[in-house]
Order: sequence, then structure tokens, then C-alpha cells
Amino acid sequence: MADKITPRSKDFSQWYLDIIQHAKLADYSPVKGCMVIRPNGYAIWERVQRVLDGKFKETGHKNAYFPLFIPESFLKKEAQHVEGFAPELAVVTMAGGKKLEEPLVVRPTSETIINSMFAKWIQSYRDLPLLINQWANVVRWEMRTRPFLRTTEFLWQEGHTCHETDQEAEEEVLRMLDVYREFAEHYMAMPVVAGKKSESERFAGAVRTYCIEALMQDGKALQAGTSHNLGQNFARAFGTEFQTRDGGRDFTWQTSWGVSTRLVGALIMTHSDDKGLVLPPRLAPIHVVIVPIAKTPEEREEVLSKAKLIADSIKSWPTQKAGLGTPMAVHIDLDDTKSPGWKFAEWEVQGVPLRIELGPKDLAKGQAVLARRDTGEKSFVEFTDIPARALELMLEIQEGLFRRAQEFRNQHITDVTDFEEFKKALDEKGGFVRAHWDGTAETERQIKEETKATIRCIPLDNPQEAGKCVRSGKPSSQRVLFARSY
Amino acid sequence: MADKITPRSKDFSQWYLDIIQHAKLADYSPVKGCMVIRPNGYAIWERVQRVLDGKFKETGHKNAYFPLFIPESFLKKEAQHVEGFAPELAVVTMAGGKKLEEPLVVRPTSETIINSMFAKWIQSYRDLPLLINQWANVVRWEMRTRPFLRTTEFLWQEGHTCHETDQEAEEEVLRMLDVYREFAEHYMAMPVVAGKKSESERFAGAVRTYCIEALMQDGKALQAGTSHNLGQNFARAFGTEFQTRDGGRDFTWQTSWGVSTRLVGALIMTHSDDKGLVLPPRLAPIHVVIVPIAKTPEEREEVLSKAKLIADSIKSWPTQKAGLGTPMAVHIDLDDTKSPGWKFAEWEVQGVPLRIELGPKDLAKGQAVLARRDTGEKSFVEFTDIPARALELMLEIQEGLFRRAQEFRNQHITDVTDFEEFKKALDEKGGFVRAHWDGTAETERQIKEETKATIRCIPLDNPQEAGKCVRSGKPSSQRVLFARSY
Repeated sequence: MADKITPRSKDFSQWYLDIIQHAKLADYSPVKGCMVIRPNGYAIWERVQRVLDGKFKETGHKNAYFPLFIPESFLKKEAQHVEGFAPELAVVTMAGGKKLEEPLVVRPTSETIINSMFAKWIQSYRDLPLLINQWANVVRWEMRTRPFLRTTEFLWQEGHTCHETDQEAEEEVLRMLDVYREFAEHYMAMPVVAGKKSESERFAGAVRTYCIEALMQDGKALQAGTSHNLGQNFARAFGTEFQTRDGGRDFTWQTSWGVSTRLVGALIMTHSDDKGLVLPPRLAPIHVVIVPIAKTPEEREEVLSKAKLIADSIKSWPTQKAGLGTPMAVHIDLDDTKSPGWKFAEWEVQGVPLRIELGPKDLAKGQAVLARRDTGEKSFVEFTDIPARALELMLEIQEGLFRRAQEFRNQHITDVTDFEEFKKALDEKGGFVRAHWDGTAETERQIKEETKATIRCIPLDNPQEAGKCVRSGKPSSQRVLFARSY
Repeated sequence: MADKITPRSKDFSQWYLDIIQHAKLADYSPVKGCMVIRPNGYAIWERVQRVLDGKFKETGHKNAYFPLFIPESFLKKEAQHVEGFAPELAVVTMAGGKKLEEPLVVRPTSETIINSMFAKWIQSYRDLPLLINQWANVVRWEMRTRPFLRTTEFLWQEGHTCHETDQEAEEEVLRMLDVYREFAEHYMAMPVVAGKKSESERFAGAVRTYCIEALMQDGKALQAGTSHNLGQNFARAFGTEFQTRDGGRDFTWQTSWGVSTRLVGALIMTHSDDKGLVLPPRLAPIHVVIVPIAKTPEEREEVLSKAKLIADSIKSWPTQKAGLGTPMAVHIDLDDTKSPGWKFAEWEVQGVPLRIELGPKDLAKGQAVLARRDTGEKSFVEFTDIPARALELMLEIQEGLFRRAQEFRNQHITDVTDFEEFKKALDEKGGFVRAHWDGTAETERQIKEETKATIRCIPLDNPQEAGKCVRSGKPSSQRVLFARSY
């Protein structure tokens, strides 16, 4: 099976699709642009949900659920919002056998429907801050789709919060951006640049949009999460007002922020290799697979019985202090119709971080073979040492994947001073290009037209330095990050 | 606040809506028939999800995700299925600014779209059983809606499985029915009758439908979960075939089963009282609320500091062996703008199983007041005994709620022999009526027209006894359960 995966060097885009198919992460559905998330892919998303949901609750947010359908008129209440989303909407016009009086839009995002409720729930500053999150499906009618990265329907979480002041809203926006950054780096082992979007790239209806930007192995950037300061735009549109501390009235200051199943695509393109999926242990649904090797029924019985003992010892090994974030999950491959070699390759395709090979000879020596998915390195480990060594390896693999991705990313940030260098860096090396920009949407548009690169972000705490815009030659006060992107 | 709840005796239906509003479980949305699930309501659903998801995984099922949209032609492939669902469909006809060539139905249930994938994934008996579950939103255009019980959009889980034989499918159907029964009784503290539906009440496209039926405090029955044996109906419609062990070909034998946010409505109507919500501890998002009582800032500081120690001791008290299913969650009410009396009433409205009252006098005596939500009983408990006593009370409350509901249910099962008794039992007492039935859909229809009662189920292992149908007088071999229902 593994030999059917197209090498990255040959065709990165096909490699990505091959990984998804061979590792059974997703499948094409009969509905244009909609994918089916298969159990292997969904299990990764469940890990993402579990971890992020915990972090949202730690930071005071509560989950709720708002309707899938939004009256068309609601979207139109915020002018920029409807302009941004109108081309992507799916619309229900018939229901219960009748034509609807007002068409219902399938939510592309929920700011409008949620604000219609916030306006009911919020009366006073005592009702603030209101910190809500929703796990949901959303629909954006896309022309070109790609599993996980861009699909007509996708799964996500959307946080929606209301605050007394602009400052509190901005703090919330940056707090959640940092939750995303920390999640990307610590759990996904994916280094990201946190920064602000240019005006052209900001969310339709937001005052400011922040994002985390990652770099894929083909040198293209990927926006992995966004956090928006909505100012009072939606509050004004929906009349979400409150009585202030000093007895006056004000519109609430709001934020929204989200990550989606796109993260699974980012995970694949950050770590995986030509053999298949590579998963960071903190998000792996299975940490260790044990492949028993036996020729006779007697051998099989002996080996399986030992395999079960090893599995139990790993599962019950304490992981909390070590910071894996979850007990180790172990799977024993009981299939007796396949050869060990076939199984080794198959589990490599599926990205399980650690494989344990166990045969009669190992039993005799009181040891087993431990094979790392990331480096392929094999070692013999005595039975009693296996659980502790497995945990060590989880952390080594997690750390190693991050370090490797970080080195790759750092090697793919190029400072340029003129437009020829700019184009050359993009074409020959890919990755992020740091360049001066005159701050205008016009120049940004020209650069995009001429190079297909966009401003990915203006990094937080970006150093200020006088310079000349790489395209217009006009004065600039800072370099920003350009890249071609997903 | 509590005094605004309509008493059950006055208007049960209004009482139900009052509980939902006062306990902030849900709210009406601007979209007809769609509700908003507020944080208090969603937290209960999250507990339901967490527990059931664990049980599905223990029984070998894996989660996946299938598209929200279903091509209209798919629904039509199974004749009974489309007939059953056609009147309730919401249909997307416009997307991305254009009219769609084929309208897309918003899933009312996913048998068809899932079978289109099963047909791709299953080749051989080696691929079976295939055991999938999905947590999702579904839409059924309802004329009369009621929060949690019947809404246009609702949240649910739908299990979909494929098997080699009819017998294996039937075993799965009954296994999952039993998972639901055990969940209803052990976690929701809600006694249910597990049984088979009559032909008229079975799922559109199923060979047999099983269900669990609960009884609400107003004497109306509520279907709380269903499990369907689909036979080969959908497999034939979609060509879900496999190579059998003996080298032949067969269509897979399938099941589907689901429970929804309706369970939250069932929970409310089983246990709550005129003061507000009553939650069984195994599903309560908060188990214990501590209300500090203090007049001066010094008192407040002292009381709060003790409250925190008590909270920590309860939170860290081991609950696993006692079978609560989760650590105890504790909330300290820090609001200093409300009186203790107001807070007591408010937490009763919200259904927290145990309230701890803690004031300066209690501090001096080294004790606190523990007040049960279910019985209102208060007791003084020494500080060191609080965590153990709190856990005991959780289990007593859980058990007590179940026992009370079971007594109520058992008192509301009436055996009748003729149609006058039948109508009298329904009108004067409500609840389940056990009566002989001739087994025909025609008689069932007549009874429904004349009394608004339907056959809720034919209980599993129903005793066989010769008798005469309560309506037609024709011979009958067993009594079945009739009731008016939600």
C-alpha cells in the first residue's frame, strides 16, 4: 500500500491526497465539495476538540448551540459582512413542501444569528463579559475544494464574546489567538507566526483580524486560525446594547474566533512523509501499535498473551506529570491474514508514533523492538522498561517533530529588499518573504496579481525599521510576511 | 424568580416552558421552530454526549462525519423512506449565487448518504461488521414545535452499522437499545419500557423499530430513543454488497439507532418540580453550589477562604469507585449583589443537586448546612465529613429520583379489558394502558382517532396471553402498551 503514495518531490499536491486516501482520513462524497470524514480522520478531530474545548473552558467560555439557519435579512444588517459572504451562501428556499416567505441561509458563520440572541440576553454591564463558544458545521460554497483545507461544509468552533470596553475585547482577541498559537505549537508540533491581517485580508465585518500562519512542507503558508476584534459593528447592527457602570448606554464590544477541520490538513502537510501520515503524539488517537509475530498457533498464543501484558502496562503508565496530556492508547494488531512486513508498512501509513514488534525470539530474550515512526529508528527494550521508554519516546517524537518543523520554517523566511529578489525567493525557495510594504491595499493587490503572494500577517511585536516598499518604493516603517498560501 | 414558575397542577405545559426559561436552558430563536440551546442546557447535553460516546466506543463503534446535504435523488432510492420524510424536508435550491441543478436536502437522518459511502467501503465480509456513529444536527420541518421535544433543527447521534447476517444485525439493534435503556435508567434516573414498535409507528425504511418509552409527570409517554433493524432495504437501494465467506455475494444487513436533545426535555419532565429544574447527579454539570453568607468584608473574606477549601476537598474527593461517573463539580456563588435567600431560590431553579450554606456561625461551629435539591432536606455536617457526605448524597439523590419516577410510572400502568375502561384510564389517570390489540393497523388507527392514544410499544419479553382486542373484540395473543404521548 505504502508504495502507492506519490512522493512529495514528484507531486506534493497528489501526495497530500494520497495520504488522505491511504491513511483513510477522508473520502469524497457524492455532494460536490463536501467530504466524508472517516473514523481515522475524525479521531484526530476529536483529539483537537477535546484539548481546545478544555482550554476554552479554562478561559471562562461556555458552549451553546445556535440555529443552522439564518434569515437572509439578518446577514444584510452588517453591510461588509454580507458583501464578504454573499457569493458563498447556500440557501434553503423550500421547506415542508412549501416555498419559504423568507429564504434561510445555511450559516457560513454565526455572528448575525448569535447577535440577535445577545441583544435579548444582555441588559447591563453585569451581564458582561459574555463568553460563548459553539462547535458546529458551517457551509461556504467554494469553487475549488480540497479535503480538510477547503470544503463546502466544514466543522469548526466559533467563539463569540461581548465586553464592556474596546480594551477588554482586544485582550480577549489576543488571549484566544495565544490559545491557538500554544495549541498549534505544543499539541500540533506546528510552529506558527501570530500576527495581524492587512485590511484586505480581514474578516468581513471585523475591525481587526489576527491569525496564526503556519508553513507547509511545500513552502506554502496556511492560515491555521483567526481571531477577530469586531468592535461594535455587529452590536450596532443588531442593537446589542447595555447599561454602563455610570448609568449610560453603549453597544457591546465583541470578538469572534475560530479554528476548523482545516487543522487536520495542516497537521498532514507539516509532518507527514512519503511513507504516510506522521502524527504528533499529543494528538495521536493511537500512540503505540503492537505487532505480534508468530508462525505456529503455540507461538501466537504466547506472543499475544505477552502483548496484552505490555499493552496494559503502557495504558496504565502515568502520563499526566510528563505532559502528554492523555494516557497512552495502545492497539494490538490481531489480524492473522497479513504478514508482519505488510503490517509495519500499514501502521506507518496510518502515522502511529511508535510500533512494538514482538516475536518468539524477543520473548526468549525478555525484550521487544521499538520502532519510531518519525525517524524509523529501532531499538531493543527490556519488557519492564517498555512503558517508561514509550512515554519518553512520545515526548521525544513530539519535541523532534516541532524542532524539525521549526527549522524548516526558519530556513524558509527570507528577507528581501527589491522586487526581483522578492520574486526569486518565492519561485526558487518558497516560504515566507519578509519585505517592506507601503501599507496600501493597492500595492498589496498588485503584488498578489504579479506573484500570487499575499500578506500573510504583520507579526505581533514586529520590529519597526524605516525602509522602502519592495513594490512601490514608497516609504515603509516595517517588513511584513508575504507568501503563497493555501 | 422561582415564584414566577407556573405550578404543574395549574398548567403542565406552561410549567415546562417556564422551567426552560427560568433555568436558562434554551431560548426561542428568530428562525421558526429552531431553538437556541443556552449554556445551562448545552452543559447537560455535553454530559449526555460524554457518557453515551464512551458507551458507543466500548461497544466497538467509531465516530465519523457525513455531509449535511443529501442529493434529492438519494432519498428517493428507498421508497418508504422518502414517503416518510418528504413532508418534513428543508431543501437548498440556490448556492453560490446560482440555482442548483439538483436540489440538496438538509439531512433529516443519514441512512441514504451514509449508504452511498458504505457501498464504496465494503467489499468483503472482512470489512464487516462496520460500526459507525455520527454526532450531528438534523432538520425536520415540523408544524408544531416545543423546545427540546420537537424542534425543526435538533442535535443527535445516529449509529449506522453493517453486518454479515440478519441475526448479527438484530443483536446489534437490541444491544444498542439496551445501551439506551441503561443510560436512561442509570444516568437519567428515568425508568423506561423497552419494546418493539407496531408497523404503523416504525421508522420509514426499517424492517423493525425498537424503542424505549418513558412516562412524564403529566401522564404522557415520551419516546426517548429508537433502534432500527433496517434489514437489507438500504443496502439494496444503494448496492451495498459484499463477498460472503463462502464466496457468494449478499447485501449487508444494517441497523441505525439514535437519541437526541429530546432527552433534555425528558429529563426536565421526569424530575423537575414547581421550584425549578431537578437534575440527577450523574448528568448534572454542577453537583454542589456553595453559597457564602457574610455581612462584613471581614466575615466575607473568612467565609470565602473556607468555602474554597471545602470546594477543593469536594472536587478532589475520589468518586470513581462510588460510580458517580465523574468527579464532583463545585461552584462557589461569588455574586455580592444578591441576598442568600435569593441565591438559594436561584440555585434551586437551576437544579443543582446539593447546596452548601456557609456563614460565620457555621465557621465557629466547624460545620456547614447541606441542603438537598430533591427533598429540600437540610442537615449540619462537620467540615471534615463534607466531601464523603456530599458523595453519599449524590448517590442517594440519584437513587431517590429513580425510585420516585419508577413508583410514579408503575402506578400509571393500568390493565384494562374493555374500551370504556380504556378511555376512562386515559382520561382520568393518564399513563400507560395495557390492553389487548388485534394486531391490525386499522384498529390502531381507530383507537388513535377516538382517544389520541397510540401503541407506544410491545414490550420485550411481553407475556403471551389469550384475550380479546379492546376495540374490535377480535382475538389477541398479548397486551400492548398504549398512551397519549409527546
